Amino acid sequence: MPQSEIDAIRTLLTVKPRPVGWAERRARLDEVGSTWSPADDIKCKAVDCDGVRGEWSIAPGSDTKKVLLYFHGGGYCSGSIVSHRRLVTEAGRAAKMRTLAIDYRLAPEHPFPAQHEDALTAWRFLRKQGLDARNIAVGGDSAGGNLALSLISRLRAAGEARPACAWLVSPWTDLTMSGATLASRDLVDPLIHKAYLEELADAYAPEPTDLTDPLISPLFANFSRFPPMLIQVGSAETLLSDATRLAEAAGAADVEVRLEVWPHMIHAWPLWNAALADGRRALAAAGDFIRARIP
Amino acid sequence: MPQSEIDAIRTLLTVKPRPVGWAERRARLDEVGSTWSPADDIKCKAVDCDGVRGEWSIAPGSDTKKVLLYFHGGGYCSGSIVSHRRLVTEAGRAAKMRTLAIDYRLAPEHPFPAQHEDALTAWRFLRKQGLDARNIAVGGDSAGGNLALSLISRLRAAGEARPACAWLVSPWTDLTMSGATLASRDLVDPLIHKAYLEELADAYAPEPTDLTDPLISPLFANFSRFPPMLIQVGSAETLLSDATRLAEAAGAADVEVRLEVWPHMIHAWPLWNAALADGRRALAAAGDFIRARIP
Repeated sequence: MPQSEIDAIRTLLTVKPRPVGWAERRARLDEVGSTWSPADDIKCKAVDCDGVRGEWSIAPGSDTKKVLLYFHGGGYCSGSIVSHRRLVTEAGRAAKMRTLAIDYRLAPEHPFPAQHEDALTAWRFLRKQGLDARNIAVGGDSAGGNLALSLISRLRAAGEARPACAWLVSPWTDLTMSGATLASRDLVDPLIHKAYLEELADAYAPEPTDLTDPLISPLFANFSRFPPMLIQVGSAETLLSDATRLAEAAGAADVEVRLEVWPHMIHAWPLWNAALADGRRALAAAGDFIRARIP
Repeated sequence: MPQSEIDAIRTLLTVKPRPVGWAERRARLDEVGSTWSPADDIKCKAVDCDGVRGEWSIAPGSDTKKVLLYFHGGGYCSGSIVSHRRLVTEAGRAAKMRTLAIDYRLAPEHPFPAQHEDALTAWRFLRKQGLDARNIAVGGDSAGGNLALSLISRLRAAGEARPACAWLVSPWTDLTMSGATLASRDLVDPLIHKAYLEELADAYAPEPTDLTDPLISPLFANFSRFPPMLIQVGSAETLLSDATRLAEAAGAADVEVRLEVWPHMIHAWPLWNAALADGRRALAAAGDFIRARIP
């Protein structure tokens, strides 16, 4: 049997063990995330979002009046504009809009709520550019999905306009780690395991922070008046039930929800879209979802 | 505030209380389900599927070589070709294929597994017409979704080819009634409540039948090698968690799953598509899903 595309990505990710130190982990995620460069026709430009580092991207023919505001994953402790550039830029192409990727501060140097402050700053920066909230989608993978959901809660609490929709890839929604698939998918998931998540959660929200706080574990949030959300998750993920339980909780609050489970895909698989047809297909589906809600 | 379309359907359904006798309940579901006739351009034709009553339907321009095999809802005790004709015929139009609706035997006169036998007979009848399994989609709402899932389990057990995809509207997947939304959505759901479901379950699978049998409660089935499935459910349903838990269970078995939660929609809302834009939109989404898998 020939090696499948996803097996090749698994090999890429597991050929070296995960490093121990934070600096080494950040370098490693930047390395594996940027295995494939952005496409040649993408234009990227650094931007200072009122003190928070960001990067604009645009593909030919995209609408500059619409923006996908994106928060990278990495457990709140790693990940960057560099690691997620290929994902974000191709998502923008699929959604036919500009993207703004955010380099929010990382834990453990900057624990919760520094990331929320940076997300709010980036959102307000974007609004000050003259963008209507109805023309902004927010997106994020893993901890970035957590941050996108928390941003919406913060905007609602502040009485500010919310984005038109949310796109969440493999979101980490429950930092209490109560999901059933953390155990049942442990052997099949090459990346995310409970002990590692506990280390990340402790760095991001050290004791005595209450991990059931809905701003930390958005699974427990009140989703009333949340915008439509697309949740994409791989079947080979310990975080599968973080996604399915989010769908139920948001749906029960009368939110429009679409959940997609992608067979055999692993955590945040659209990162490797350059070499993974299901990564490209997931981005195309996300682009369709976003464009239907930001017409 | 003007009355919304869904409020008008709620009024239609609750203006009279649910009757007590089985015959009266069947008449009532036929009445509210056929409030709107099939569209004028739909052709329907009765068919004897080797002893099981069925009905073909086709919309102009649909492909006669592809079929949506449909099982109506009604708690295994009511529902018919008549009650579901508007839903099935418009689903066929959206999927651009013929439909075959099945009048399987009803409980309590015919308890489990009579319905499974009829579903298998209908499936095999269809195959004998020369249809490739890859050109057949199976669909069902409520108990009909349960039956569609059970049919796939039976086909797998028998070593027979499975349909190309499954489309499940408000599926009743757990006859043990362990879903959290049975309680949390009880007040908002106008149709489906736990005591009623218990009455239906007792008629369909009387004691000492084990309700955890995966053929009775497909939530507990092994979903290995199931075809892609689209699950559509309303947010105003006690059966919301029957749908979300199905998505998790099937997804964990590496099945391609799309779950859609439709805000404010009630149990099996596409029945009333003639007067409900979200019913038409749900059918359009189902049609797109099916056509993408039966190209």
